[in-house]
Amino acid sequence: MELKISPELKEIVSFDSKIPSFKTYLVGDWVSSKEFEDVISPIDLTVFARVPRIPDQMIDQALTKIYEKGRWEVRDMPGEKRLKTFHDMASLLDKFREDLIEALIVGNGKTRAAANGEVNASIERLIRADLDVRKLYGEYVPGDWSSESLETEAIVRREPVGVVLAITPFNYPLFDVVNKFVYSTVAGNAILIKPASRTPLPALLFARIAEIAGFPRHGLGVLTVPGKEMDKIISDKRIGVISFTGSTETGEKVIRLGGVKQYVMELGGGDSAIVLDDSDPTYTAQKIATSMTSYSGQRCDSIKFVFSEPNVYDPLKGTLIEELKKVKIGDPREEVNMGPVIEKGTVDELEFAIKDATEKGARILFGGKRIKDNYVEPTLLEIEKERVKELYLYKKEVFLSVAVMVKVENVDEAISLSNSRRYGLDASVFGNDINKIRKAIRMLEVGAIYINDFPRHGIGYFPFGGRKDSGLGREGIGYTIEHVTTYKTVVYNYKGKGVWEYM
Amino acid sequence: MELKISPELKEIVSFDSKIPSFKTYLVGDWVSSKEFEDVISPIDLTVFARVPRIPDQMIDQALTKIYEKGRWEVRDMPGEKRLKTFHDMASLLDKFREDLIEALIVGNGKTRAAANGEVNASIERLIRADLDVRKLYGEYVPGDWSSESLETEAIVRREPVGVVLAITPFNYPLFDVVNKFVYSTVAGNAILIKPASRTPLPALLFARIAEIAGFPRHGLGVLTVPGKEMDKIISDKRIGVISFTGSTETGEKVIRLGGVKQYVMELGGGDSAIVLDDSDPTYTAQKIATSMTSYSGQRCDSIKFVFSEPNVYDPLKGTLIEELKKVKIGDPREEVNMGPVIEKGTVDELEFAIKDATEKGARILFGGKRIKDNYVEPTLLEIEKERVKELYLYKKEVFLSVAVMVKVENVDEAISLSNSRRYGLDASVFGNDINKIRKAIRMLEVGAIYINDFPRHGIGYFPFGGRKDSGLGREGIGYTIEHVTTYKTVVYNYKGKGVWEYM
Amino acid sequence: MELKISPELKEIVSFDSKIPSFKTYLVGDWVSSKEFEDVISPIDLTVFARVPRIPDQMIDQALTKIYEKGRWEVRDMPGEKRLKTFHDMASLLDKFREDLIEALIVGNGKTRAAANGEVNASIERLIRADLDVRKLYGEYVPGDWSSESLETEAIVRREPVGVVLAITPFNYPLFDVVNKFVYSTVAGNAILIKPASRTPLPALLFARIAEIAGFPRHGLGVLTVPGKEMDKIISDKRIGVISFTGSTETGEKVIRLGGVKQYVMELGGGDSAIVLDDSDPTYTAQKIATSMTSYSGQRCDSIKFVFSEPNVYDPLKGTLIEELKKVKIGDPREEVNMGPVIEKGTVDELEFAIKDATEKGARILFGGKRIKDNYVEPTLLEIEKERVKELYLYKKEVFLSVAVMVKVENVDEAISLSNSRRYGLDASVFGNDINKIRKAIRMLEVGAIYINDFPRHGIGYFPFGGRKDSGLGREGIGYTIEHVTTYKTVVYNYKGKGVWEYM
Amino acid sequence: MELKISPELKEIVSFDSKIPSFKTYLVGDWVSSKEFEDVISPIDLTVFARVPRIPDQMIDQALTKIYEKGRWEVRDMPGEKRLKTFHDMASLLDKFREDLIEALIVGNGKTRAAANGEVNASIERLIRADLDVRKLYGEYVPGDWSSESLETEAIVRREPVGVVLAITPFNYPLFDVVNKFVYSTVAGNAILIKPASRTPLPALLFARIAEIAGFPRHGLGVLTVPGKEMDKIISDKRIGVISFTGSTETGEKVIRLGGVKQYVMELGGGDSAIVLDDSDPTYTAQKIATSMTSYSGQRCDSIKFVFSEPNVYDPLKGTLIEELKKVKIGDPREEVNMGPVIEKGTVDELEFAIKDATEKGARILFGGKRIKDNYVEPTLLEIEKERVKELYLYKKEVFLSVAVMVKVENVDEAISLSNSRRYGLDASVFGNDINKIRKAIRMLEVGAIYINDFPRHGIGYFPFGGRKDSGLGREGIGYTIEHVTTYKTVVYNYKGKGVWEYM
Repeated sequence: MELKISPELKEIVSFDSKIPSFKTYLVGDWVSSKEFEDVISPIDLTVFARVPRIPDQMIDQALTKIYEKGRWEVRDMPGEKRLKTFHDMASLLDKFREDLIEALIVGNGKTRAAANGEVNASIERLIRADLDVRKLYGEYVPGDWSSESLETEAIVRREPVGVVLAITPFNYPLFDVVNKFVYSTVAGNAILIKPASRTPLPALLFARIAEIAGFPRHGLGVLTVPGKEMDKIISDKRIGVISFTGSTETGEKVIRLGGVKQYVMELGGGDSAIVLDDSDPTYTAQKIATSMTSYSGQRCDSIKFVFSEPNVYDPLKGTLIEELKKVKIGDPREEVNMGPVIEKGTVDELEFAIKDATEKGARILFGGKRIKDNYVEPTLLEIEKERVKELYLYKKEVFLSVAVMVKVENVDEAISLSNSRRYGLDASVFGNDINKIRKAIRMLEVGAIYINDFPRHGIGYFPFGGRKDSGLGREGIGYTIEHVTTYKTVVYNYKGKGVWEYM
Repeated sequence: MELKISPELKEIVSFDSKIPSFKTYLVGDWVSSKEFEDVISPIDLTVFARVPRIPDQMIDQALTKIYEKGRWEVRDMPGEKRLKTFHDMASLLDKFREDLIEALIVGNGKTRAAANGEVNASIERLIRADLDVRKLYGEYVPGDWSSESLETEAIVRREPVGVVLAITPFNYPLFDVVNKFVYSTVAGNAILIKPASRTPLPALLFARIAEIAGFPRHGLGVLTVPGKEMDKIISDKRIGVISFTGSTETGEKVIRLGGVKQYVMELGGGDSAIVLDDSDPTYTAQKIATSMTSYSGQRCDSIKFVFSEPNVYDPLKGTLIEELKKVKIGDPREEVNMGPVIEKGTVDELEFAIKDATEKGARILFGGKRIKDNYVEPTLLEIEKERVKELYLYKKEVFLSVAVMVKVENVDEAISLSNSRRYGLDASVFGNDINKIRKAIRMLEVGAIYINDFPRHGIGYFPFGGRKDSGLGREGIGYTIEHVTTYKTVVYNYKGKGVWEYM
Repeated sequence: MELKISPELKEIVSFDSKIPSFKTYLVGDWVSSKEFEDVISPIDLTVFARVPRIPDQMIDQALTKIYEKGRWEVRDMPGEKRLKTFHDMASLLDKFREDLIEALIVGNGKTRAAANGEVNASIERLIRADLDVRKLYGEYVPGDWSSESLETEAIVRREPVGVVLAITPFNYPLFDVVNKFVYSTVAGNAILIKPASRTPLPALLFARIAEIAGFPRHGLGVLTVPGKEMDKIISDKRIGVISFTGSTETGEKVIRLGGVKQYVMELGGGDSAIVLDDSDPTYTAQKIATSMTSYSGQRCDSIKFVFSEPNVYDPLKGTLIEELKKVKIGDPREEVNMGPVIEKGTVDELEFAIKDATEKGARILFGGKRIKDNYVEPTLLEIEKERVKELYLYKKEVFLSVAVMVKVENVDEAISLSNSRRYGLDASVFGNDINKIRKAIRMLEVGAIYINDFPRHGIGYFPFGGRKDSGLGREGIGYTIEHVTTYKTVVYNYKGKGVWEYM
Repeated sequence: MELKISPELKEIVSFDSKIPSFKTYLVGDWVSSKEFEDVISPIDLTVFARVPRIPDQMIDQALTKIYEKGRWEVRDMPGEKRLKTFHDMASLLDKFREDLIEALIVGNGKTRAAANGEVNASIERLIRADLDVRKLYGEYVPGDWSSESLETEAIVRREPVGVVLAITPFNYPLFDVVNKFVYSTVAGNAILIKPASRTPLPALLFARIAEIAGFPRHGLGVLTVPGKEMDKIISDKRIGVISFTGSTETGEKVIRLGGVKQYVMELGGGDSAIVLDDSDPTYTAQKIATSMTSYSGQRCDSIKFVFSEPNVYDPLKGTLIEELKKVKIGDPREEVNMGPVIEKGTVDELEFAIKDATEKGARILFGGKRIKDNYVEPTLLEIEKERVKELYLYKKEVFLSVAVMVKVENVDEAISLSNSRRYGLDASVFGNDINKIRKAIRMLEVGAIYINDFPRHGIGYFPFGGRKDSGLGREGIGYTIEHVTTYKTVVYNYKGKGVWEYM
């Protein structure tokens, strides 16, 4: 496996050995290290790049630099200039589109279409930073409405916290970096990015692009470190915000280490689709199949459960199986719908989960077979509503393309089964009846509900994020500003100064 | 020391022994226990009441009840009825004013004026819940502004998280309970209150008032448990929000135990006053003296440092000493300005801190002497700006009436010395120059800044809360709603339905 | 016809002659006049009260007083005290409920239930003024987002304009006065009320209640003057806002006279109901019948057109006729659903409109007959969609209970026929299909759309108001604040003062 | 006088005669006419271009086209594409910068710096349309807070009204057109622009740019008609909004003709500067001189009165005279500060006003002399506070560079003299005392107050607009959206559908 890189980006790579070695951007400088981490392609499980393994001491220096210089550099760059820089980065993403697509195909096993879509979403996210600004205006609070505060008044506005630590997942290694970068810095924070160890390259390429576009030098750093060596920085008090996307288990650990900080926690779970009797089964099956197979199901918003009202159940099942049959799996550089999953272990876990399910009475409706190593068919199971709660798949997310169909009596049962999971990220509702839909909206304990669509966090235009074990806070244009800023209240006391002369 | 109680409130108290024993309200029922905790009056350090020590098993049952029933009872009571209940509670607080004042004098050592003020603030907080409502409207987000979301639209609104655990401090045992109760329940949450072990009675009296007013029975509980037995409930996943007011150290512990939850953390620190050369020294000295001595300095927003520009320094010092001389200390039931502090140990800590300070070059300008046990003079020290950072008082909050004066060259130095503390709750700026004031506002790393007033979180009309080691989130009418609710996004997909016909 | 009045309200009435003569409240004083206007009961068309006819000169004096004193008195009463006064007025409305009901039955010909409902709505409007407050906070606008405004910042907030002139209609002579009073004064304006000449008493009773509750004396006046003598005051520059509810024709005249002022114009039109094939015809027919007959159709939001999809048309028609058959008409003091209309002339106009309609091909499905004088049956007509636009009823509102049914092919035709009227107040949509409903929402050119309900401006919780010939601005809690206030922008320039130090 | 035009823009001009004839853009087509209007350069009062005089019938056709097609074309272009078009227009303004500067110099007599500044402001206004979007999100209003609306809910959002008529003044013939264009169309309206008859060319060039950028063809029209022929279109009901900038007298006439429509009225007045004793007289004098002389005082926000506290009065006067002495007047194509005023008549009016002033006791401190035709010195007068109200200049705005100094006792007198004028556009306050400044802010009856700066509506980032005779509504990014849109309320009734189950 080999990675093509534009000449202009090559200065951050060394080609001394057969495997190209990247430098990382550490708060003002491109640095290397004595030790390296291999970057493996899921396509054929070969090593195709190396990134430096940054030692503790360099991390601490970087943190000192970003805290003492970087956070001021970002805050002291006028907001309108920050927006201008983002527009320039968007142009550069477009210019270096092929490099990024390449990194996403080779590094993530994405199809070209998926990789291209991720670049587009990243470009749009940068441009739409304009819309984040609406949350950066403040409030004027008159003292008029409480007897205690007469003749005083306040301004309440959001200020950047200082330094955001962004811990990003393997599955959207470009978009997730861009998204966290944008909302952190548009609000005036500096940012340290810890990319997923499996897919660090897009973060490095993006850092280079930010540098070219003139983003403040000390306002950004990329930490190529294994997750297990992050404890010290996570608990460092100079980090004011942690924005984490990943598993519930790691998220829990991060917050327990981090202590008194602000958090955005996008954790997992897998989503439910609730299908009402008056929905169109063909339309619905297509949407569910797309959700299941998009990026091989390696999305936190992938549909994992289909709770269907009884009359539509059979036609839905039939069409859904037909849709899954159409899915081509294989090397993502060819004409396929699904490539590999990121690591073999997840397929092992699927095999365990299928065995667990069939033992508990589930039937395999489609797929479930490993093609080789980390390539596997999309899998559709079916089980009775009385037993679904026993499943491993119900209790824990298996991060690939697998869903369980359950026939329920009515929307209330569907809601109840969806709510009983410990996760609460999203849900879909398919159907037309305005009253049933409204009831599901009220009762579902999730962060986002999609009516007649599969859940898609998309470019982050609408806010998303989980409840319960699926997380804290919201990502989405405008909304994350709340989590990466802190209010400053300024109270002006004019008592006795003759400004107001009350009756 | 004896406590007077109105007949209508007596049914929650047993007078079997000489010391009255209170029951506690545990999610629908008033319960007692085999074990009790003594409640001690700081006035004379005698036991004047007992409260049951709730065992683990009962706590767990209470949690089950509030999670399964209570949170729905609150959410299913229409908001306008909740407001009506609050207005009724406000009337009852007024009706039982004397019982509450009594509990605050005997239990907290407050003066009658201070106790009465706390009742008034609590009444106003209940009535002003009307203003919290403005944060409970939602947003309609058109899909028009991103290419990805055309022909879709979203509603984004706040929903109650479910169950809030409120951990309240000893110093405002009524107001803080009422405040946390109001913002939690106006937003539709149920609430468990863990009052400070030293001053649990106001919470119990308030629970009785809420019950009389018709607040949903299973929507409220009061946990009379020692803090050290709270670990299990803090980490329980059914608790969705913890609102904690207390020390930084305990706050850190709470969040590390609690894990993935939403937090409001009102931690400590003590505040800085920055005095500009063009301020009126008499006015300023009066404000600082009031801040220092109000409730014997046992306020998180008490002024602990005075950073003064040079020209006003001497007149300010002179007047401030004069103001402190006027302060009468003694039994709060008599005509005094300052009563006891809540426990002897804090006076011991002050003695240590004074010794530490004088060894490092500080001069005692006023006070510093223990009168007896837990009665002590307000204390004013002075030190050079070069050495202030070494002081114990700079590094750690001593929770009583003590402040340190420091002469600085200009406002920049004052800001720098204020920001270098690990705390960041509030600051005051005294003076008239609009430009210097604006600079201080921008640069101070605190949650709230008071211009020409001492910091006062007051009735909570303006939002307050800390940065850095002083906490997370904001309390204040309207603002805390953000922390006790979670967004629900509903995305409606109308693609291909002919709603929009784009060019 | 005789009017009962509580003793406490009697001091504003003289019983010198057989017909009681009311005084009017003119900015601080209860005044009488040499000339009087008769107040006639629609029940039997007899005179039952008199009100003074205020001469020009007294109006001018009142205007001087309210402009020079009154507007400051209201603005200088702290907001929280204004709210307190409103709560007190709400209690007084409850206390004098019988007087108000009496005035509404005798003066308006309302049923007791309708009169009682209007009192309740007025009470709730006063209490809910708390919710208006959310629009009285201001915005802090940072200068950061434009290169022109760096190092500056602004506060933008709403201030009262000064004096509002409220011109209220006959049909809700209490609620409309209360509503306009609340939104004008909660925002800090003084108010002059010109009640409908036919039903002035509720405004006078309310003024007395406001006075008892302690509303600022010079902040309120009631102008008992014939509409045709209002020209001079309408064009007076000291009037900053005119809030008018009435006919399109009068509204046009007001604005042409008034010139550069702010306006709220709640004009007329009558509403459309769009009935989709998947709606429940029984439910829908009941809602439409209620809308048609409520207060004898003398509501601006009364349904005047029913555009129905074809499959539901016949069952809907059948049920609707049945519902109308149940309606009892007669003296409103007896057990009836519909009393008289306010004046005979409107019944004459109906007779003309029916004749016009039948000549153009319409069929009378129900009613249409005058019972006597100003008592008339509710009327339901039917016509083909091709001819409906020719009807007098389509072009002009007849202000009583009359509706026209039209069968349409689909929702698009219904929307088109609704939009082609020159009015655009409200519309109803009955049905369940989320996609059709959404399309109707987008395309209807009206101020408010009610899904599965008849249009009801209710207590004004949700904003309402018209487009096209139906008006300007919105009434509704919170929203009208925009129209009775004016923004004040305060720009602070700190250029070169060292507050910001941009990169 | 000759106008240079880029080849790409030349297709809208005919060079058949010596004087170039422009076409105008009439809702889809570039059209000419039989009759023409001369366009005269204020530099030498010669005719340098002609524009067609559009006859009534063509206007009516254009109105039909924009109402029936154009308003849908704009509304049906997705918002994000509209923003994209604006960015493209911004690039084109930059590309054709020289053409625009030329038109502004020759047509308006602006200096090159001023002309260039106007192009820049126009570019920034287009780009910053992103910030307008924040006002285009809607509100979700829960029914929970009123007993009348339980089990219902509403969405309230702004919709475009349809067609905006923009009537623009001569002084900012490019920026004002762009500003009105942006806020009208970003909100989804179509727009008809009636440029000032004296300076129509920038509007035509901008229309061409909009066309090149792909703005919807039928969504824009430019009406080159004399103002006096506008009556019919102003009163046409298809025009839903009129945005007018011009004199109070014309504004009054427009609204009286227009009737029931929405209005933005930016009328005149001239501004007050209030100078406090603690201000820096040099800084203040420079700011005042700039405000007086910028574009020869032909700005509605030009300072016309200086009310100064007594101690700073003399130094301020001295410095201000010095500043005015430095001002060079002459042909704006040369190195001057001030060019001509737009017409001779205004200089005649100044001469009258100076005579009036001196007769009433005023002294000429500087200037006042006509240089030739429409070239005149900046003029500074001084008068006693007791007589200032008598001046013609106090009662009426003379639209060129002239100001009157008045010494007052204190800030209260300054406020009172400023408020007693019939205008209320802006005011400046110079000084540092936070308390005096705050008082002035509260009491001044103007639309915008500038602290330590002269009033400048600038690029429209902060909202501006007048009170009293100075207008209605606000222009400024985001804020004008309120005036060119109308709320649509959608109420959903779920009563009895089991969505809510209230206690």
